[in-house]
Amino acid sequence: MKINIPESNHPRVVIVGGGFGGLMLARQLAKSDLQVVLIDRNNFHQFQPLFYQVAMAGLEPSSIVFPLRKYFQKISNVFIRVTEVTAIEIENNRIQTPLGIVNYDYLVLATGAHTNFFGNAKIASKAISMKSVSEALYLRNRILEDYEKALTITDFDDRQGYIDIVIVGGGPTGVEVAGALAEMRQYILPKDYPELDSHEVDIHLIQSGDQLLKGMSKQSADKALKFLKDLNVNVILNDRVTDIEGDMVFMSHGEPIRSRKVIWAAGIIGSIIPGLPESAIARGNRVRINEYCQVEGTGNIFAIGDLAFQLTESYPDGHPQVAQVAMQMGKYLGNYFKLKSKDKTVKPFKYNDLGSMATVGRNRAVVDLPKFHFQGFFAWLVWLFIHLFQLIGVRNKVIVFFNWIWSYLTYDQSLRLIIRPFVPEKMEEEPSEAK
Amino acid sequence: MKINIPESNHPRVVIVGGGFGGLMLARQLAKSDLQVVLIDRNNFHQFQPLFYQVAMAGLEPSSIVFPLRKYFQKISNVFIRVTEVTAIEIENNRIQTPLGIVNYDYLVLATGAHTNFFGNAKIASKAISMKSVSEALYLRNRILEDYEKALTITDFDDRQGYIDIVIVGGGPTGVEVAGALAEMRQYILPKDYPELDSHEVDIHLIQSGDQLLKGMSKQSADKALKFLKDLNVNVILNDRVTDIEGDMVFMSHGEPIRSRKVIWAAGIIGSIIPGLPESAIARGNRVRINEYCQVEGTGNIFAIGDLAFQLTESYPDGHPQVAQVAMQMGKYLGNYFKLKSKDKTVKPFKYNDLGSMATVGRNRAVVDLPKFHFQGFFAWLVWLFIHLFQLIGVRNKVIVFFNWIWSYLTYDQSLRLIIRPFVPEKMEEEPSEAK
Repeated sequence: MKINIPESNHPRVVIVGGGFGGLMLARQLAKSDLQVVLIDRNNFHQFQPLFYQVAMAGLEPSSIVFPLRKYFQKISNVFIRVTEVTAIEIENNRIQTPLGIVNYDYLVLATGAHTNFFGNAKIASKAISMKSVSEALYLRNRILEDYEKALTITDFDDRQGYIDIVIVGGGPTGVEVAGALAEMRQYILPKDYPELDSHEVDIHLIQSGDQLLKGMSKQSADKALKFLKDLNVNVILNDRVTDIEGDMVFMSHGEPIRSRKVIWAAGIIGSIIPGLPESAIARGNRVRINEYCQVEGTGNIFAIGDLAFQLTESYPDGHPQVAQVAMQMGKYLGNYFKLKSKDKTVKPFKYNDLGSMATVGRNRAVVDLPKFHFQGFFAWLVWLFIHLFQLIGVRNKVIVFFNWIWSYLTYDQSLRLIIRPFVPEKMEEEPSEAK
Repeated sequence: MKINIPESNHPRVVIVGGGFGGLMLARQLAKSDLQVVLIDRNNFHQFQPLFYQVAMAGLEPSSIVFPLRKYFQKISNVFIRVTEVTAIEIENNRIQTPLGIVNYDYLVLATGAHTNFFGNAKIASKAISMKSVSEALYLRNRILEDYEKALTITDFDDRQGYIDIVIVGGGPTGVEVAGALAEMRQYILPKDYPELDSHEVDIHLIQSGDQLLKGMSKQSADKALKFLKDLNVNVILNDRVTDIEGDMVFMSHGEPIRSRKVIWAAGIIGSIIPGLPESAIARGNRVRINEYCQVEGTGNIFAIGDLAFQLTESYPDGHPQVAQVAMQMGKYLGNYFKLKSKDKTVKPFKYNDLGSMATVGRNRAVVDLPKFHFQGFFAWLVWLFIHLFQLIGVRNKVIVFFNWIWSYLTYDQSLRLIIRPFVPEKMEEEPSEAK
């Protein structure tokens, strides 16, 4: 059965995923001569760089996500459908979803990537990842529940399992989570949990390589390490987590660590949809695209963002899987479709690296611009304002700004809430209904 | 096993429930000579009068709840435990919780009330109640999910089931929900869902009696009815919902209504804890208390708020189950304990009725003061400011105020988010772990 979308005489572009890339593309095509169908499993766009602040009870989820329908109010050529794409039928130019079939003239895959547990199903079932605002909320609940539980435990070792935390992965997310947790331990714990000794709380950050923030400058990586050490984070380089068993976390080299919470920020893997040609799938489930973001071996299918793998001289391993690449590809592709429809020639995509950054906490951040690296208070201000500026919606900007000022001045926030999801009790279906 | 709470030489007051009554009492006893143990199943206080705005995507949950630990930071005689009380052992002066046993010198029951489905288990399993912020969030998701689903349905009758809503109960909650839904239909739906015809959306409010807002003045009840009719809410008086079957809602008298969403705001029943003497349980599972809020048939157990049933000349059916009564009882009991400890005499509790109110929407509210009733714009302003003033926390006041102004000016909000809870996948336990 076909999904209910108005037929039109204009070519239909189906965009799968409303992340940085997909949203930018849909925005470019708004009010164009194309019919745009934007499909996402959520009815909102998520601002991934601030997930960790939701998990650390610093921001509300609603402040960093934005409803897609509100974003496209008054845009009559963009149709939103909240569902998942389960398969691509290349030969029929259509995709399958639980809501029905959707035909396309052009298909753009902007599904991004999800957490990579490198095939270890046991770790996957026990570690906590942070690739959605729902997971971030789950982590917030877990951290607070474990502090509550720890209060009632008199045995030292047993209690350690609840209050100590292991963070796996020394990229921006791992570094930001470790810094935020260390600040929570320093400023919040003694006030909220005077019955717990905050000195008993250990925060471990595990990085497989020999430096943090891979891809950033040595200067920034070293400074981030120093910042974390200043905050008493136990940074372990050149080691990996191999297993989790009960409240024990086992390592390749080091001693096991007692902790019931392992936050996994160690890698991502492309979210591919069944139906693409085998030859188009590259390492890490990324999808090979040519210089026009076209999926190799297909005619009218494109891929952008974290999912896409574009081989260029400057980036022999593909582009970094960051928001900037996704947004630039989205913008590029919007332009591509518009020029193509006028039979104009299009130049290949070229990534313009604007730099990268990470924050470790109050007054502490590292910023690498293409020609200039700086760290500390000014870098932190730059980090704050660039993130604030990129948030969608005036209301979100105002609320986040207010929250940040509030937290900065009071060293405290009032979001440490364990809001457990309500799950309705299902009654046994009665025989009368089965008829 | 005893729960881990520091022993002290001071008498211990255990308060069960951190709602309006329990919180007020704990606040009165802060820094007193008593040891206070405050037990709640949540780590936060909930501001129940605004649940409906969370459900209608007008406010974030965090704006109307406040973490108990933050509230009692720096108060060294108040100990918070997040758990449920499963039984009272009167003869041993202790209570049971999943975390262990808690001894008390005085026990105060402030557990409030939960939704009353009047014994109809089928309706209980299918209707949606709104007695916690989690349920309010669930309702928000349900409303939005059903609009999304309705988009994809071409059959008129089938679609009605997803977009029409039945609200049962014409008290303040029912009236407020109906008004807010009608405004969502009027201002939001045409913008967010141009593919749906908002005129197809029906909102039914069912009230078993012959007037809305029972307990308020006739003048206010009539005006509320008029306000709702102005907003095109179908108010049905003198009827009841008897059954829900698939997408059909059956009534005592009227025709069945097609709707998959029945919001139940038709009554409450006291949240009693096993172990109290039979004779102390009154109608609606309320607990009989004497003029000092002491549970009948016990020596050192008290009950306050929605749970309590105090027979007085002015209130032969007990006090109304509203926040004001709970707060005044909490304050009274704080004073009672302080005076008792100094062997002073205590006067019986006397409720001071400050009035009641309800809002129907923008510029529309009804207010009954003891000697003066008024309705309309000014009543609406009074409603807003009294609710704002009663919220806990400066941050919450600022955020709610900002949200209200924003909504008022833009007729829109950006909280229409279907944030599904993350539920971790449980792996099959491996044999090696079972050993």
